[in-house]
Amino acid sequence: MKEHIANQFRDIQNSICAGLEDLDGKAGFREDQWNRPGGGGGRSRVIHGGDLIEKGGVNFSEVYGECSAELRKQLRKDVHHFYATGVSIVLHPNNPMVPIIHMNIRFFELDDGTHWFGGGIDLTPHYVDKEEARIFHQQLKEVCDRHHTAYYPRFKGWADDYFYLPHRNETRGVGGIFFDDLGRDESETNQYFNFTVEVAHAFVPIYSHLVNRKRHSPFKKEEREWQLLRRGRYVEFNLVHDRGTRFGLLSNGRTESILMSLPNVASWEYMHEPEAESREAQTLALLKKGIDWLQ
Amino acid sequence: MKEHIANQFRDIQNSICAGLEDLDGKAGFREDQWNRPGGGGGRSRVIHGGDLIEKGGVNFSEVYGECSAELRKQLRKDVHHFYATGVSIVLHPNNPMVPIIHMNIRFFELDDGTHWFGGGIDLTPHYVDKEEARIFHQQLKEVCDRHHTAYYPRFKGWADDYFYLPHRNETRGVGGIFFDDLGRDESETNQYFNFTVEVAHAFVPIYSHLVNRKRHSPFKKEEREWQLLRRGRYVEFNLVHDRGTRFGLLSNGRTESILMSLPNVASWEYMHEPEAESREAQTLALLKKGIDWLQ
Repeated sequence: MKEHIANQFRDIQNSICAGLEDLDGKAGFREDQWNRPGGGGGRSRVIHGGDLIEKGGVNFSEVYGECSAELRKQLRKDVHHFYATGVSIVLHPNNPMVPIIHMNIRFFELDDGTHWFGGGIDLTPHYVDKEEARIFHQQLKEVCDRHHTAYYPRFKGWADDYFYLPHRNETRGVGGIFFDDLGRDESETNQYFNFTVEVAHAFVPIYSHLVNRKRHSPFKKEEREWQLLRRGRYVEFNLVHDRGTRFGLLSNGRTESILMSLPNVASWEYMHEPEAESREAQTLALLKKGIDWLQ
Repeated sequence: MKEHIANQFRDIQNSICAGLEDLDGKAGFREDQWNRPGGGGGRSRVIHGGDLIEKGGVNFSEVYGECSAELRKQLRKDVHHFYATGVSIVLHPNNPMVPIIHMNIRFFELDDGTHWFGGGIDLTPHYVDKEEARIFHQQLKEVCDRHHTAYYPRFKGWADDYFYLPHRNETRGVGGIFFDDLGRDESETNQYFNFTVEVAHAFVPIYSHLVNRKRHSPFKKEEREWQLLRRGRYVEFNLVHDRGTRFGLLSNGRTESILMSLPNVASWEYMHEPEAESREAQTLALLKKGIDWLQ
């Protein structure tokens, strides 16, 4: 089963990269294949300097081996060997009117026989646009509803909780869906595998739809500066909170692949406060948990 | 005693800010006073857009109250109340030839009667210059030697271990001194208090000496770009590893004060590799633990 899943995930990486190269229209992915000293490896694909994408990555990995103390602690299980395969994507667009997007799908298996799927897609607009958020969530809901009508509300709430910066009291963006620990029961494995694959296949059409609404929007220097500040928050989330990033960095993962999620430029300004009623202030007011974007 | 220490630390903040404004010659510090909901507060002072300093902060805080579960875990002690006062400094210069510098001094007291001092100074050159590192370490050694000849070797080694990015296999810079848990024994409290204060008083003269060697050095666009990449590493250290930053962010500290240590602009480039024999490559080769800079 592992091999089948990893092959599907490789195919997903291929088709997403092809779709994104088409969408960008200028830049192509550079591929680096790497081996993990303890077992397994991956194919990292990074794109930069595109017409649409300033910097982004679509990484596949399939790693296995002995559980470190760190991993055992994170899994809360006394197991000896693990297997993990996944695809991770982060795209930072040039244009501040176009949102940052992230997707991840993953499968874990431990030597005690347990296995599960996880994943998610979330959107981080530099400027929150309610119509854009509505389209995004509507499309995610449609993918979820094809599998179970309980999925969207459950996974949307999970994303609100996960993609959150407590030290800023801000969500990372307008959320999306996040799921983990699915398909532990043998009878559900196929169902959740199919769901995970379908989430991944929805990625390019969803992002293309959003990108095409905005990619030629004009923007000013001040809007670019705001974009760099929002990217600073993205860096904060990934380095302080994101489980995948922190686990990778603390467990001897391939640093360059893990940190492909960081933008090529980001900024921080002490006590930056947007003017009242500005679009920046309106954006901050919408970076909250629990908003029903479909209303 | 606590009040006496906090007053001295406030005076240190005042004199360092005055010294740095003189050194900069253009920009001044902005002060924000803040209260901590659980007890205490601080005076944050931030400077930016200077002739020398692009962005920097000199923060004083005196906080106390109930220990959170997080703090108890970090202290490895089942105590109920804590008291902590300290001064923290990070300065990011405009000129890539001038090093980033950091200093921190701190005093902790718990309700079981234990107390201790900690602190350190470390230097992060964008371009390592052996003569600059030698001067820096020589001056730190002189401060240490006035108290005990065992201090410099011990605290220099501690800095090598602390200011280290395992995921990059790089030190943050040329190190300096780092110390913690000093003066727990009542008979040593005064001695370590005096040492801590003297480290702080050495900060402005040491940095002024280094700055004045380089502040007017010309630099090229490529050198500025390298500076931004090195600042990216600084962000990685502070958000992933630095105990003070992570503790502050995870325990409801004042986020804007904690993150004043981040540069106003930083960058990341996938698989950046400097040309062989370049000054950038020479710098990377010197970001290693255990170098005796005094040789």
